Amino acid sequence: MPEFHETTLRVRYAETDQMGVVYHGNFFTWFEVGRVELCRQLGFAYQQMEAEDDTFIVVAEATCRYKRPVRFDDVLRIRTRIASAQRRTVRFAYQIFNDASGELAAEGETVHVYCDRTGRPRTLPEKYRVHFPVTLRRDAEAAHKL
Amino acid sequence: MPEFHETTLRVRYAETDQMGVVYHGNFFTWFEVGRVELCRQLGFAYQQMEAEDDTFIVVAEATCRYKRPVRFDDVLRIRTRIASAQRRTVRFAYQIFNDASGELAAEGETVHVYCDRTGRPRTLPEKYRVHFPVTLRRDAEAAHKL
Amino acid sequence: MPEFHETTLRVRYAETDQMGVVYHGNFFTWFEVGRVELCRQLGFAYQQMEAEDDTFIVVAEATCRYKRPVRFDDVLRIRTRIASAQRRTVRFAYQIFNDASGELAAEGETVHVYCDRTGRPRTLPEKYRVHFPVTLRRDAEAAHKL
Amino acid sequence: MPEFHETTLRVRYAETDQMGVVYHGNFFTWFEVGRVELCRQLGFAYQQMEAEDDTFIVVAEATCRYKRPVRFDDVLRIRTRIASAQRRTVRFAYQIFNDASGELAAEGETVHVYCDRTGRPRTLPEKYRVHFPVTLRRDAEAAHKL
Repeated sequence: MPEFHETTLRVRYAETDQMGVVYHGNFFTWFEVGRVELCRQLGFAYQQMEAEDDTFIVVAEATCRYKRPVRFDDVLRIRTRIASAQRRTVRFAYQIFNDASGELAAEGETVHVYCDRTGRPRTLPEKYRVHFPVTLRRDAEAAHKL
Repeated sequence: MPEFHETTLRVRYAETDQMGVVYHGNFFTWFEVGRVELCRQLGFAYQQMEAEDDTFIVVAEATCRYKRPVRFDDVLRIRTRIASAQRRTVRFAYQIFNDASGELAAEGETVHVYCDRTGRPRTLPEKYRVHFPVTLRRDAEAAHKL
Repeated sequence: MPEFHETTLRVRYAETDQMGVVYHGNFFTWFEVGRVELCRQLGFAYQQMEAEDDTFIVVAEATCRYKRPVRFDDVLRIRTRIASAQRRTVRFAYQIFNDASGELAAEGETVHVYCDRTGRPRTLPEKYRVHFPVTLRRDAEAAHKL
Repeated sequence: MPEFHETTLRVRYAETDQMGVVYHGNFFTWFEVGRVELCRQLGFAYQQMEAEDDTFIVVAEATCRYKRPVRFDDVLRIRTRIASAQRRTVRFAYQIFNDASGELAAEGETVHVYCDRTGRPRTLPEKYRVHFPVTLRRDAEAAHKL
């Protein structure tokens, strides 16, 4: 699990605020874009997980550390990887780069719990475990190695 | 049906863009706030309509005309009224005022179709018709009288 | 000016609402994406217009008519064209298609006024007029031909 | 600095996602609402800090831990306090409660750096220091006491 998956996007005007840079809350939407594209690269579509297997990846914790502001029309490169995975939880790690300068703009993590449609925690269905192999490292430990 | 319902809200930083004013798309969210509060004043909660009566008020058309910019931390007064109602559709009209200056900031309309959970059009359940009395005026006519 | 410019994007989870489809207000952000990409295709970057020429394209009116719901992870094709242009205003027209089915999901228009940084109306700087040639058709007429 | 400031808001339809609950990124906007209202209660308006004193409170880090989902139309109570303050940084802590049930829905922190309009770090102007008294506790220590 050492590899990042990469995807790019372009900053929208709607995502800026009156400071002239992107509003900090929008980075979490970009983390979502990275996560969804990572799933696609792993070989499955997240919405099939919801629709066919009654499995929702509910966010339990989200963190972002902002390094450099990003601006309207910047092209961003989002690197996403699975930092650790357990039967009931998964942790993704993200780095967002300004594609033109190569500078790190932000980095963060999200922790998720698998739930069914009613919001009850469940284990990850067997068919997806190949994609999210359980790591031996404890979550806390993994967090320090991001 | 001549009365407006009024509600107020304060502009959030997240709602501004790099022009230093509110991003135009956010006015449609405020129209929604006005619509939901109008329903509450009429005596029912919109989410009960969805949950208990399988009736969703799906947006078929939305228009906003911007008169004056609004800024972070401005208090806005939203006036909402039912412009016209039919058994299968309803049209809401909105005016948004800057509460401090009393100036009109924007006005608009949304047209909605009643649908069930699957997105199929349906008539408004009997119990809600008292709140949305069918108007004799044709929609087009009503649109000109906003 | 008969041609549309096209760009594509993928629907984000953040853009959906509890009805299971995209929240209607987000279509205006997609119109913005179409507008920005049209400018780029015409040979200039919108943010240079703001930064170098003190010209802001302020939204005066926005309309969207929703034809079919769009869902998380759908790929959308946005077609944008200049419907009419005057020295002080410009009108864009949009169509949003579901890329997989080819079905029209929504269409709309936005009307814009050129302003300087302080929000005062101004004429479009000479250097951009080649991109936004003034149309002889009156705006109202153009609106009917969208 | 032991007191929380409280404010309430009602969840908007636009803030939900197809899981039927609020999209996790929107909690950071609510943290902003809490922060702005805290400033107002402390006796100053955040936008004056920007406009009159060229001081922007730039987000350097943001974290949210989600405890229970919140839904459309829920009334939320946001508790905000200054967890620690230094001459160049300030840390806010938040708790979001479902007002009807009293249950904790989420909690989090944001760390901010004072910057001028160009994004260069600066110290907090003298006149605001009375509101954000420098704490002797180290940030890390404060973080554990949230």
